[in-house]
Amino acid sequence: MAEQHTEQVTPWEVEGEVDYDKLIRQFGTKKIDDSLYSRLKKYGDNHMLRRKYFFSHRDLDLVLNDYEQKKGFFLYTGLAVSKNMHLGHLTSFLMSRWLQETFGVNLYVEIPDEEKFLARKDMTIEEIDQQAEDVILNIAALGFDPEKTFIFKDREYVKNMYTLACKIAKKVNFSNVKAVFGFNEQTNIGLMFYPAMQMVPCFFEEKRCLIPAGIDQDPYWRIQRDIAESMGGFKTAAIHSQFLPPLSGVEGKMSASRPENAIYLNDDAKTVRNKIMKYAFSGGQPTIEEHRKKGGNPAVDVSYQWLKIFFEPNDARLKQIHDDYKSGKMLTGELKQILADKLNLFLENHRAEKEKAVKKVEKLKYSGKLAKKMWETTF
Amino acid sequence: MAEQHTEQVTPWEVEGEVDYDKLIRQFGTKKIDDSLYSRLKKYGDNHMLRRKYFFSHRDLDLVLNDYEQKKGFFLYTGLAVSKNMHLGHLTSFLMSRWLQETFGVNLYVEIPDEEKFLARKDMTIEEIDQQAEDVILNIAALGFDPEKTFIFKDREYVKNMYTLACKIAKKVNFSNVKAVFGFNEQTNIGLMFYPAMQMVPCFFEEKRCLIPAGIDQDPYWRIQRDIAESMGGFKTAAIHSQFLPPLSGVEGKMSASRPENAIYLNDDAKTVRNKIMKYAFSGGQPTIEEHRKKGGNPAVDVSYQWLKIFFEPNDARLKQIHDDYKSGKMLTGELKQILADKLNLFLENHRAEKEKAVKKVEKLKYSGKLAKKMWETTF
Repeated sequence: MAEQHTEQVTPWEVEGEVDYDKLIRQFGTKKIDDSLYSRLKKYGDNHMLRRKYFFSHRDLDLVLNDYEQKKGFFLYTGLAVSKNMHLGHLTSFLMSRWLQETFGVNLYVEIPDEEKFLARKDMTIEEIDQQAEDVILNIAALGFDPEKTFIFKDREYVKNMYTLACKIAKKVNFSNVKAVFGFNEQTNIGLMFYPAMQMVPCFFEEKRCLIPAGIDQDPYWRIQRDIAESMGGFKTAAIHSQFLPPLSGVEGKMSASRPENAIYLNDDAKTVRNKIMKYAFSGGQPTIEEHRKKGGNPAVDVSYQWLKIFFEPNDARLKQIHDDYKSGKMLTGELKQILADKLNLFLENHRAEKEKAVKKVEKLKYSGKLAKKMWETTF
Repeated sequence: MAEQHTEQVTPWEVEGEVDYDKLIRQFGTKKIDDSLYSRLKKYGDNHMLRRKYFFSHRDLDLVLNDYEQKKGFFLYTGLAVSKNMHLGHLTSFLMSRWLQETFGVNLYVEIPDEEKFLARKDMTIEEIDQQAEDVILNIAALGFDPEKTFIFKDREYVKNMYTLACKIAKKVNFSNVKAVFGFNEQTNIGLMFYPAMQMVPCFFEEKRCLIPAGIDQDPYWRIQRDIAESMGGFKTAAIHSQFLPPLSGVEGKMSASRPENAIYLNDDAKTVRNKIMKYAFSGGQPTIEEHRKKGGNPAVDVSYQWLKIFFEPNDARLKQIHDDYKSGKMLTGELKQILADKLNLFLENHRAEKEKAVKKVEKLKYSGKLAKKMWETTF
């Protein structure tokens, strides 16, 4: 019975598959193929890569060449200030952490505290400043190397960035940002300038920059790649993830503004359990009887997908869950229970790390080896 | 004979007169009329006001109200970095100095070192940084109150300005800057953002800001006046000058890029004399005989105009020159000699002050009472 589902390709599955291939074609990125994955695997293993959650790239092969030729590379990522950080915000950071640990490279984390203000009508500077510190704590909790990581807020670090931002801005006109960011005549002039600030960290080192990010972020780096060589720098490389599906189903992207669709990092255990039980889209059958008979469909089951992407790195255990669910041996409620337990364990640990991170933040922002050097450098 | 000229209105005179009235109508500013001039005169006298070189304003009456009601006001001006500072660059600063001395108010001087870079293809950041220091020395040489004046370069002071620049930028869109600055789709995004940086100092104090500037600068402050009240601030007031005429004639504006039309602050005495003798447009007659007979026309004579605007504040002495020239008693060469002598005296003194200014700059930029406070303030 279960076998039906692998042959009977559901619209969801088709759509899912096709969409990501389509995005690769549309954006002109490259798939992380077996040969590239094998190169990466030589240095270490990561289930988000192994399971093709990170599935697309630009110039990752050149990054590996540079690494192998001892030229090195560096990582850059960032996070907009958000009132409610959710799980979807973490995957690029987890990939960054893995890359940092695996290759021993520097990581720059931009907190664009002006961009959020410029883009949103409903957040004041004061609210953003408050939230920014919480965002930074959440990032610090993930455990980056305090001597090789620099977390900075644009408004605080702007003096060191502004000259380079102007050099970049001089090469980018309204037509460019209109095409890439969809700006129009009503777009405010702050938002118009912001892409220059976002591009600055791509030039922080005279090495290739690698950005782990959702595939939807790719267009934002096109301008950088267009102007990089005329700036005497490298075209930024990227490694792209799919989207962590929202609770409502495997299509689309988790949103910070729809609480029923996302798990927030500050959701308590009971809330997490309730959200998963109530909202997590299920690949199961309408009745237990039917489920036992026909089995569930892991490909569209959000709980299974979250385990696959995020919470169950062990392949054997994941396969067991997959097979049990698909055969009907495991019920939807049981599958959800597994996710809820693992998720709550993760969040409990995250919150404990966040408490401890209060002490780490100072190093990541100001006094770690890399941070200290960055405050002494004007670009 | 000389009387002919006051009745026979030459095309130049008409054009000159009409143009400035037309600019007032076109820009929607107000004339500094006798009543407003009388109010100002109560506090002190200034030949650039008396002779209507500063002839137009916005809200100068409100500035005086504020002053008289002990609410106070402050001054703001600025100067783009230029390879060749010329006399035309000084008049707004001289008016600023007079206003500062007369009313005892603070003055903020912005050096938009990013704007020059963004607007010009032919100047590198390094060249701009070098020139900026020379520009600042020239300003410091004019003798501003070191405890009440703050001279800052945007790229150096940006951290203190950027948040407010973003707040301003959020209220200004591409349509606005297109209309006022003539930006288009090819304008770079740095130049697009710059007006926000230019507006920041208008909000440095919770008082009305007064900007002494050429009338052609008026449009640049319209956006500030449009958004000021929604920012909880004051619409910026202004006092507008005519243009210091180029050597070539009383129309147009002195340009830094046409050496035969301008006197640069670093022109030596011989160069000054040569330029005036050779290029200064003369209101005299073709031959000495004719000149003695018909007299000269001070209204179109650049040497006379420069004496009037800049170098001969004494009304009685100016009248003597005027009458002697108009009657034909004074020849063009003699008039030019008077200007050359006064100009060289001015420049000699300026360069001596510039030498001494090396010590003053530190206070104006960093350690004077106002400067110190400004470095401790983030807007």
